[in-house]
Amino acid sequence: MTPTVRIDLARLDTNIAAQPGPLRPHVKTHKIPEIARRQIAAGAHGLTVATVGEAEVFAEVSDDIFIAYPVWADKRLRALAERVRLSVGCDSLEAAERLVGIPAGVLIELDSGHHRSGVPVTALEALARGVFDLGLDLRGAFTFPGHSYAPGAQAQAARDEDQALRAAGDILRARGVADPVLSGGSTPSARYSRVATERRPGVYVFNDAQQLELGTCDWSGIALTVAARVVSRREDRHQIIVDAGSKILGSDRPAWATGFGRIRGASDARITALSEHHGTVAWPAGERLPAIGEELAVVPNHVCLVLNLVDEVEVVSGGRVVDRWQVAARGMN
Amino acid sequence: MTPTVRIDLARLDTNIAAQPGPLRPHVKTHKIPEIARRQIAAGAHGLTVATVGEAEVFAEVSDDIFIAYPVWADKRLRALAERVRLSVGCDSLEAAERLVGIPAGVLIELDSGHHRSGVPVTALEALARGVFDLGLDLRGAFTFPGHSYAPGAQAQAARDEDQALRAAGDILRARGVADPVLSGGSTPSARYSRVATERRPGVYVFNDAQQLELGTCDWSGIALTVAARVVSRREDRHQIIVDAGSKILGSDRPAWATGFGRIRGASDARITALSEHHGTVAWPAGERLPAIGEELAVVPNHVCLVLNLVDEVEVVSGGRVVDRWQVAARGMN
Repeated sequence: MTPTVRIDLARLDTNIAAQPGPLRPHVKTHKIPEIARRQIAAGAHGLTVATVGEAEVFAEVSDDIFIAYPVWADKRLRALAERVRLSVGCDSLEAAERLVGIPAGVLIELDSGHHRSGVPVTALEALARGVFDLGLDLRGAFTFPGHSYAPGAQAQAARDEDQALRAAGDILRARGVADPVLSGGSTPSARYSRVATERRPGVYVFNDAQQLELGTCDWSGIALTVAARVVSRREDRHQIIVDAGSKILGSDRPAWATGFGRIRGASDARITALSEHHGTVAWPAGERLPAIGEELAVVPNHVCLVLNLVDEVEVVSGGRVVDRWQVAARGMN
Repeated sequence: MTPTVRIDLARLDTNIAAQPGPLRPHVKTHKIPEIARRQIAAGAHGLTVATVGEAEVFAEVSDDIFIAYPVWADKRLRALAERVRLSVGCDSLEAAERLVGIPAGVLIELDSGHHRSGVPVTALEALARGVFDLGLDLRGAFTFPGHSYAPGAQAQAARDEDQALRAAGDILRARGVADPVLSGGSTPSARYSRVATERRPGVYVFNDAQQLELGTCDWSGIALTVAARVVSRREDRHQIIVDAGSKILGSDRPAWATGFGRIRGASDARITALSEHHGTVAWPAGERLPAIGEELAVVPNHVCLVLNLVDEVEVVSGGRVVDRWQVAARGMN
């Protein structure tokens, strides 16, 4: 049946083994316990999640979980903290106050250039003092150098991360945090990162069209594709329509991306438009247009969205489906 | 808990009642049987779906279903066709051949200017002949004037639809289809459409930021919002971060949209960036920045993506949650 998400088991394991540590990988990418277990077996010392719902699922896999998000604490968070060794992100005194009495460690989030959540390094000392004064267990700092997601930006983003984490380390040690956690890393920047005591890449297990176009991986590194069928074709436009749209591929398309995804085995083809159930593919001039009914392997732009859109995936080895994994944390956003 | 999808029941019912017929509404927007029942009760003569999976769910609500998609027939389609009065889309002889022996009607898809699936009107006659020669039950033609999704393009898209459907009607009647179904319509263009014997809008039940910016509705027409919490704020950037990202809002953003979504009660605020669990909101200069922990009502750009991202929604009446509806066809894409 199409569309279906397929994972190449050998390539998945190669990607997991090849990622340099120390690692606390972000499991929001896959939301699949079987994959998290492989990451732990390969040496990861804990897991990163985005939400309390994800943490509840992955507490079955690891007893050391970091919610890399400025959480607004509630009863569910408290119950979770009583169950595993938990750390949470924090970038405000208001959110810190809600953590009082909850047995979780705190990592202050720094903005190292992505300008999303996180405080500037200049505001770290004041917030760290506030967190201490509340009696919280301040364990370190973290940042997400998301500005690594642009062509040629990876090394600079890693330097920004290094600079922010180095300064944070100095400030936190001066305040008596003996061995602060300094957590960084994104899949594109991880290889350039020097200061972090742990890295939190997520996408590296699968890779995707964004990583391909950023140069983080090559075609052989792609471990996940969406099997899609050609349902319409127009010779006059040299265009085909596949039955994978935004409801399985996600519709992320950064300005620098060449389209909404790529096709394995047709590196010059581009998904030029995406609606919910249609992917419009401009086929390379001079190349034979695929037939109606033919199956293609689509490489999505941003793989983290794809797993959240399906309940299960097919696991493929040697060309055969050898397993089906449930996306246990799907929708827990 | 945030983020949560909330539906305003009174506004939903008003939107359903106000849409001019004849209607075969597209239920891919909501994927919720309770809403489809309200559409049928308000006069819709059947339902439109995008996939066989959706059809299987909505066969519980209506026994007259149209899969407005160039389906590649299989055993599931056959089983469905034996259960309800089914029509399917078709735009190629290859797909038509697979329909032989399946008791479903066929509507040929026309490209009226959106340039996705569908044949040009000039190719209709040849395909209609092929469909007849296969012994299939040719019932009519359909088109989706998706090029209505651009500022000021609605009336012209409806005229394109009218022209395609009028020509199709002439061709089909000449071939002996006495009273052909001529199916058209999108939410933005529906009010301008003149020739269609039925229209298939979907979004009109909820509306969304796209419809607001296209002028199809005003703020009072918005029946669905995503309750989101402010989890981070930066006075120096006059920016807040809410806990609704692309994994609940979807990341559709056409070139003409002013952002990734809007905020109810803050019409000048814009969601300028969206990652999986963060919405970055540029707050209007001079207006008080919301506090951390405050809850906001986010209007997503494209509501059809939102329902597919959650398992259930809250139904609100008079400020109270009065019901929870399951998104029964979520993920059936």
